[in-house]
Amino acid sequence: MPAPTTLLGYIDENADRFIKRLADAVAIPSVSGDRTHREDVFKMAKFIEDQLQTLGVQTRLEDLGTETLDGHEIKLPPAVLGKIGEDPKKKTILIYGHFDVQPAFKSDGWSTDPFTLTIADDGQLIGRGSSDDKGPILGWLNVLEAHRDLGIGLPVNLRFVFEGMEESGSVGLDEFIAAEHARGKDGWFHGVDVVCISDNYWLNTRTPCITYGLRGLAYMFVQVSGPARDLHSGVFGRTVHEPMTDLVTLLGKLVAPDGTILIPGVDDMIRAADSEERELYDRLDYSIADIEAAVGASIAVSDDKTQVLMGRMRQPSLSIHGIEGAFYGSGAKTVIPAKVTGKFSIRLVPPQTPDKVVPLVIQYLEAEFAKLNSKNKLRVYLEHGGKPWVADIKHWNYEAAIKATQAVYNKLPDMTREGGSIPVTLTFAETLGVNVLLLPMGRGDDGAHSTNEKLDRSNFIEGTKLLGTYLHEVAAINA
Amino acid sequence: MPAPTTLLGYIDENADRFIKRLADAVAIPSVSGDRTHREDVFKMAKFIEDQLQTLGVQTRLEDLGTETLDGHEIKLPPAVLGKIGEDPKKKTILIYGHFDVQPAFKSDGWSTDPFTLTIADDGQLIGRGSSDDKGPILGWLNVLEAHRDLGIGLPVNLRFVFEGMEESGSVGLDEFIAAEHARGKDGWFHGVDVVCISDNYWLNTRTPCITYGLRGLAYMFVQVSGPARDLHSGVFGRTVHEPMTDLVTLLGKLVAPDGTILIPGVDDMIRAADSEERELYDRLDYSIADIEAAVGASIAVSDDKTQVLMGRMRQPSLSIHGIEGAFYGSGAKTVIPAKVTGKFSIRLVPPQTPDKVVPLVIQYLEAEFAKLNSKNKLRVYLEHGGKPWVADIKHWNYEAAIKATQAVYNKLPDMTREGGSIPVTLTFAETLGVNVLLLPMGRGDDGAHSTNEKLDRSNFIEGTKLLGTYLHEVAAINA
Repeated sequence: MPAPTTLLGYIDENADRFIKRLADAVAIPSVSGDRTHREDVFKMAKFIEDQLQTLGVQTRLEDLGTETLDGHEIKLPPAVLGKIGEDPKKKTILIYGHFDVQPAFKSDGWSTDPFTLTIADDGQLIGRGSSDDKGPILGWLNVLEAHRDLGIGLPVNLRFVFEGMEESGSVGLDEFIAAEHARGKDGWFHGVDVVCISDNYWLNTRTPCITYGLRGLAYMFVQVSGPARDLHSGVFGRTVHEPMTDLVTLLGKLVAPDGTILIPGVDDMIRAADSEERELYDRLDYSIADIEAAVGASIAVSDDKTQVLMGRMRQPSLSIHGIEGAFYGSGAKTVIPAKVTGKFSIRLVPPQTPDKVVPLVIQYLEAEFAKLNSKNKLRVYLEHGGKPWVADIKHWNYEAAIKATQAVYNKLPDMTREGGSIPVTLTFAETLGVNVLLLPMGRGDDGAHSTNEKLDRSNFIEGTKLLGTYLHEVAAINA
Repeated sequence: MPAPTTLLGYIDENADRFIKRLADAVAIPSVSGDRTHREDVFKMAKFIEDQLQTLGVQTRLEDLGTETLDGHEIKLPPAVLGKIGEDPKKKTILIYGHFDVQPAFKSDGWSTDPFTLTIADDGQLIGRGSSDDKGPILGWLNVLEAHRDLGIGLPVNLRFVFEGMEESGSVGLDEFIAAEHARGKDGWFHGVDVVCISDNYWLNTRTPCITYGLRGLAYMFVQVSGPARDLHSGVFGRTVHEPMTDLVTLLGKLVAPDGTILIPGVDDMIRAADSEERELYDRLDYSIADIEAAVGASIAVSDDKTQVLMGRMRQPSLSIHGIEGAFYGSGAKTVIPAKVTGKFSIRLVPPQTPDKVVPLVIQYLEAEFAKLNSKNKLRVYLEHGGKPWVADIKHWNYEAAIKATQAVYNKLPDMTREGGSIPVTLTFAETLGVNVLLLPMGRGDDGAHSTNEKLDRSNFIEGTKLLGTYLHEVAAINA
């Protein structure tokens, strides 16, 4: 049972009106990280709630408490909860999205006013939040509206959780999810079979993708301290153990230029890809030229696209971010810094977790430091971490998404894992214990956190069809 | 012919008045680095000129032009030139000092108002510039006054150059010295036999010292650049060559934790100390406890005092100061910095010069970078440099200073080289081609650029005797 053709036709016919609604949503500058825009985030919550109610969804604004921002205690934006359908014979899908956005100022380099949706000649819908993540949320509204107007019953039960703090650490959300889950049969999430999140992007600009994995993170600090205060290098150079000498020596032993992690046991945790898995990467519509275009330089670690993609998706990576406490300005300063803290992070993939990897890092750095015979003091510790996530792509949730993509786009989706993290994914997967699907709407060049963020018109409209078709494919599977 | 005892008696008898004059000098906040104090630096120049004139010195205020400070073009403080004595049978000594000071605010942590000379119970004269370098300049005024009041003829011809920009890079001074020297017989420096500078410190708090060497400097930048902009480590970790990985690897190959420079050929330029030279360091009144007290931690590179002192005085040192372009804040940021510049400097000792050392550094880093097989770009270059300086301590200038120290302090001075640089020393030595002597007045704990700068009363008074006695010892030597 694919989606009714009337549904797809309705979406095409109403495209301009859908875009107008997206413009209304983009016009509300719901920047969660800017205190002066907090009211707009509330306004945006109300906008979504009103739309949901109009479309027959039972809603609730969930108060998530307060936070301290710039020294002021202010109310957190509410989560917008929605429920439609309670047929025990139908599957129940939880939809997640966020209605807050990244900051944006014309002066950052935008070609147009960031909070006025501008339709370019090539069909790009330019504006903050167009792709991240108002477009996808409105995609769901479009789907609901099409069903209502056409008198087609929803093939599944739906639950919505739309939050207003995703760009600011999702403050309050994890606690809410955990608390509701703990309420068992009375909780908001009772009966949810699977989760669908549309908040990431295609690997490229050409081929739709479905994402089934995210890397975890172990963000670590390595601190070397020596003298009681910064020293003058003229007076003390070659008389004392300098913390920077020790630190760069240690940082230089973490990772090879080609990305190989030098900490014993870390890379080894990952089994090599078998031919079946390797084929998954071979098939991805991606080239070395794509990565070079994305970074603006010919610096890929390999000429083999598959190896580069596996480096990003199914291997851990170690990046050195910087040093706190050393001289960082322009010009010259002849200082021997007294206490320096190297910052690096390891992106984790299953079966790695911070618990498994961090002790190896600490042990290794302490052993390497001991070899230096330095009288300085070393401290290595985890600053924050998160587990990686990989979903079972043989689950009906994925089966439905793949079929829906084929139906709408007439091609197989790229099956991808992402190098970064979307923490709420892990929260849903671990707390609710259900399959989670990442079903993106936008393209890899949408510039989600950048200037001139856009969503292509075709991605918005075909993406709406995709979301609708996915619901029908879910219902059609006998699971 | 030691100094007449009446001279030494006069200095003791007039000590309180000399301290009063030092208080008047400290009261003028002649901070050269602070535009709002520029008038005070001019006022200080006039103060010194008036005193010199009163004492029979022929003076001139030398206009050194203008500089741009904080975006404003302002007049440089003049150099105060002085001349007394033109007897061709007498030696001619050029005296250098500076009347500008470092910034100082009570709020920096001073116990007393920095521009009010405070006499502590233990005899410390506390105030900005007391030791650096108003005390020594006033020491010379004290000597002139004693000779005039006692009717004792000066045993040498004297020339004075007191500048008001030393704490701000001595802007304009090098050019003046070079220009005057180029004027030959008509130039201000014509006939100068030797130079005496009192602008550094004893090695410790117990034993007077005479300084005959300074290290030079090669301040270098090593820059690695890759992507066109900063990248997200989640998305790009293990897909591209990361500039920070390359940079820390290179920085980790510069110097061993014990201070050994790993760049081939750099340490090798210095011949090992022979037993005679080693003895010079053995004799210095210094201990590992002294260095540990100075840095506030037990981090000396060796338990052998002689080795530590040689590391500071007669060996090159390499210190890594920091990285520009990387993350340096507190907290965590998952950035792959696009362009990072490591900053390090090498302190040089003869026969090293920037010209000899810099090519070795560049060649080494380029070779090490080539081994990394990175596609990033490397650039290594000298930011600024200066030659080292070592004087002939068998010259009569030193002979006289040693005798004067023995006469006043009744002990042999520590013969020291300093790890830092005092650029004007090199200018005088190279431009005028004469022997330069560093004859400090203050102690190693005076805190010249720090809070609660002080000069001990005994250092001011005995130091005045030392400067006066030195002139008589110079005259007594048949050279």
